[in-house]
Amino acid sequence: MDAPVSNRLADRMQRGDVFAPRCPSRDVLKHVTSTWGVLVLIALRGGTLRFSELRRKVAGVSERMLAQTLQQLEGDGLLLRRSYPVVPPHVEYSLTDFGHEAAERVEALTDWIEERLPELARRA
Amino acid sequence: MDAPVSNRLADRMQRGDVFAPRCPSRDVLKHVTSTWGVLVLIALRGGTLRFSELRRKVAGVSERMLAQTLQQLEGDGLLLRRSYPVVPPHVEYSLTDFGHEAAERVEALTDWIEERLPELARRA
Repeated sequence: MDAPVSNRLADRMQRGDVFAPRCPSRDVLKHVTSTWGVLVLIALRGGTLRFSELRRKVAGVSERMLAQTLQQLEGDGLLLRRSYPVVPPHVEYSLTDFGHEAAERVEALTDWIEERLPELARRA
Repeated sequence: MDAPVSNRLADRMQRGDVFAPRCPSRDVLKHVTSTWGVLVLIALRGGTLRFSELRRKVAGVSERMLAQTLQQLEGDGLLLRRSYPVVPPHVEYSLTDFGHEAAERVEALTDWIEERLPELARRA
């Protein structure tokens, strides 16, 4: 976990720069554009979901990868995790305001890819 | 190279679906959101560049990774490669119309991350 180092670095910056190899913006970029990061963000645009609901929506993800993805997005401040002290455990995930902003842009990109895919494939 | 298989699959689709594990839209998504894919797309928004110019702009990329990234984006129909039969070899890269559309959306996302980074880091 090198979050404290990233935080200090980011605090000194006016804004990130993805062209700078050590800029922490690259970590956020990696998290939100990983296959599972993309799908989790889009799935949560519809509202709060439990871990098991997310796992069903994001078909093909393992429990471990989903947990790791959720932790990364929570660490980036894009996602809220709420756990209720009941048996069996009940954990809910939702987007923060920042998360909604990121998800909107990620979905604009995937929407474009999905829409253009048949043309892209013919042209390639 | 499994492009012909992807093409046939994509040809049968009305539109892609990134939630479908075997949808070829996931390959395009991977290419345009890889660290080097992102930086190449943004770098080429400014206009045609030679391989050596791209390598300077995309600081930290190896010759091999840059070549692979360019090949993937070309295969997706996002990038044009023009080589001139001179000595030493002169190769130029530019975005196709589709490439410009993809790059615009990728940059909307990275712009947002760069701008929000200081707040994200404080909040996380």
